[in-house]
Parts: sequence; C-alpha cells; structure tokens
Amino acid sequence: MSFRATVLTLFPQMFPGHLGHSLAGRAIERGDVSIDAVQIRDFATDRHRSVDDTPAGGGAGMVLRADVLAAAIDHATPDDDPRPRLLLSPRGTPLTQKRVRQLSTGSGILLVCGRFEGVDQRVIDSRRLEEVSIGDYLLSGGEPAALVLLDAIIRLLPGVMGNAESGGEESFENGLLEYPHYTRPALFEDKPIPEILTSGDHQAVRRWRHEQSLALTRARRPDLLDRKP
Amino acid sequence: MSFRATVLTLFPQMFPGHLGHSLAGRAIERGDVSIDAVQIRDFATDRHRSVDDTPAGGGAGMVLRADVLAAAIDHATPDDDPRPRLLLSPRGTPLTQKRVRQLSTGSGILLVCGRFEGVDQRVIDSRRLEEVSIGDYLLSGGEPAALVLLDAIIRLLPGVMGNAESGGEESFENGLLEYPHYTRPALFEDKPIPEILTSGDHQAVRRWRHEQSLALTRARRPDLLDRKP
Repeated sequence: MSFRATVLTLFPQMFPGHLGHSLAGRAIERGDVSIDAVQIRDFATDRHRSVDDTPAGGGAGMVLRADVLAAAIDHATPDDDPRPRLLLSPRGTPLTQKRVRQLSTGSGILLVCGRFEGVDQRVIDSRRLEEVSIGDYLLSGGEPAALVLLDAIIRLLPGVMGNAESGGEESFENGLLEYPHYTRPALFEDKPIPEILTSGDHQAVRRWRHEQSLALTRARRPDLLDRKP
Repeated sequence: MSFRATVLTLFPQMFPGHLGHSLAGRAIERGDVSIDAVQIRDFATDRHRSVDDTPAGGGAGMVLRADVLAAAIDHATPDDDPRPRLLLSPRGTPLTQKRVRQLSTGSGILLVCGRFEGVDQRVIDSRRLEEVSIGDYLLSGGEPAALVLLDAIIRLLPGVMGNAESGGEESFENGLLEYPHYTRPALFEDKPIPEILTSGDHQAVRRWRHEQSLALTRARRPDLLDRKP
C-alpha cells in the first residue's frame, strides 16, 4: 500500500524538492510514496486568475480566498477521501513525533500551503482544516513546512529506512533527548572516546547513556520532562 | 552586503531546493543571498571515502566521524570567519523567531547537516557547534531543517519581501498567534465576513483582532502567554 500525499500550493515546482533525493527519493521511485502537487491558481474563477485579496478590516498583506481554495480542496479530496487535511500555519498546533507517527500509519495526507498574510478563516472552518505548525518561527509560506512534515512521515514508512538508520532510542521517541555519540578514531585532537563506551560492559554503557540523556534533557529541554506521564 | 550561507552536507544536490523558487530564488538571483553546499565526503581521508563509523559502545546506526567533519568545517570557515556555526539536530535548542531575526542581521551562517545516528560529540565540542532544533520530530537528516532555517532567515533580509507580505503583526512577532483573516467574497457558502471587519471602525477592528489573538493563543498555545514578560 502506498502513501499518497496531495499538496495544494501556489508553487508546485517546489515539490518534491529535497524529497526527490536520498531515502525519500528512492521511496518515491519505488512507488511507496506519491507526492502530487496541485496548483491552487488553477481554481481561480476570474479572468486575472487571482487567488488572493486584501484583508477585510484593513492591514498589510494579502489573504488567500475561501472560494478558490475550497474549490481546490474539493477537487483534490472526494467526499469519501479518508485522508486528514492539514493546513501548515504558524498558528497551528505544534507538530510532534507522536502526530507524525499517527499520520504515517494512514493512507496519505492532504496538505494546504498558505501564502500571503493568511488564509480566509471560513475555508479553514468549512473544510475542517487541521492547522499544524512545525515550529515557532515564520516561513515564506507553507511549502518548506510541508516538505519537512513529509520527510518526517516518509522516514517512518515501512521499508524506507534500512538498518543504517533505525528508530527506537532516538530523541523524542522515549521522551528524552539523545545521549552523545562517539566513533573512531579513538583519539581526536587528543580527545579520547569516554572510557566507559569502550569497556565492553553493556549494562554500564546503557546506564551512562540514560544518565547523559536525562542530564541533557534537564539542561536544554526541561519542558520535555514535565510532559512525561 | 550579501548574506552568505555555507552548508556542510552529504547531499549537496538537495540545495538550494525549494529556496531556488519564489522570493528566496529571486534573492539568490540578485546576489543578495548565496548558498554554498559543501560535500562532507570530499574531506574523507581513507580510500573508501568513508565519513561514518559504528557507535562506540554499540547500538544501531552510524555516527559521523569527528575528524572528517572537522576538516570540512575548517576548510569552510577560516579562523577569522565571524559567521555562527549551527548543527541542525533534534537535541538542539528549539529555534525561535527571535533567534532567526538575530541570525538574519549577521553576515551569514555555517550550517552542518547531520545524518545517520548522529555526529561525534568531540567535533561538536571542539568546533563549538550550536545545536539547533526546528521542532520536536525526527527528520531523515539535517537538510530539510537547514532549508527551513534558511527560508526563515531569507524572508527577513532587506529587500526580499515586498509590501505584499510584511511583518509586524504576524504570529510570534508580538508573542501571540495571529487573529483570523477574511477577504472577498463577502459571502462564502452563506457565511459572511464578521460584521465588525467591514464596519470601518478601525479602533473596534484593532480591539477585535487583539481579542481574537489572545483567545486563540490561550486555547492553542498557553505556553506562549507564560513566556511573555
């Protein structure tokens, strides 16, 4: 079963972007993933093919029209389409690894990329778009965020990651930041690998790594510890 | 003065990616921004050109070697290079709009994209890499994160955004999520634009928008309110 992503955007040429390379690129080539970028402008109805207009109530920027975007959404998702519909937006619920994992178990996703000042609220409401934010910063549009979300999903799909990169002990998967890593050479600019890691004592290694994870999380992300059950 | 980004990566072909289009693409064409992707593998020293090795202490995945990455960093940044050096990593400090704004006022940035299980801690320490995370989820590597960070920076550079998209009242810039937007048509599927926005009473509009921003932030992101001074 392949994972089907449909992206509504004013810049379809941005897709598949970096997803055309490496692991994601191979998953697309194999047909395990499809990314279909749909030009919102194709659903404009006036002769200027306009998709945006000035905000009601005044202010800077332009707002994506409800009618044009609704037509694009309705075209891309028939009534029986079970795929979740997400709008990438800095106002959205912060994306988490848990949500990524949920999305990766579904049949696909519809992603709406906002541009300009924003999107008319009435289409968000009527088409029940789930607003999702990839972080507390502003982007030129939803496209870079959509590519990040797709990357995060695709790496979790069955068969995409080999043994070379595996999950399990990684950051967030257990609620902690990952412990520090070391590899050859044994000595780098007079700095050795911590002795315990070359001791062969697997239990001691495990204990050390857990302590390092905890200490790092406490120092950098105490908020993650509060979230633990 | 142009903003100079150097990206160390195993996938230089992923750059400039989506940044080659739209506003960022035009900034690159004008020469206001340069993005130089450097292949880390070019700094491998053995005949297999290997850049990674198994983690000391055991475990899944592969770790990027300290010596190879250090050679790439030293080549890309001479001693007098004032640019900050960032490592994109889920263990990093969460990226904020404030940090993006700081970075955008500098002369450029060095970005290191991790792959595999992680990066040897000794190169992070010795080359004083600042670990930055774009969000609480896992990516296939640092590349999608680097592209997001660059997008966020580039849109703030002088001359990049026209009047079409302007800052100021946007999400995060004032510590609140943005209020809902509306534009023509006046009636969308029987739903009108909220009356107050077409009243012409600018003060009432401003008050309504602030209330909406506050209510939305309280509902979705109470953590942002706690952060306010």
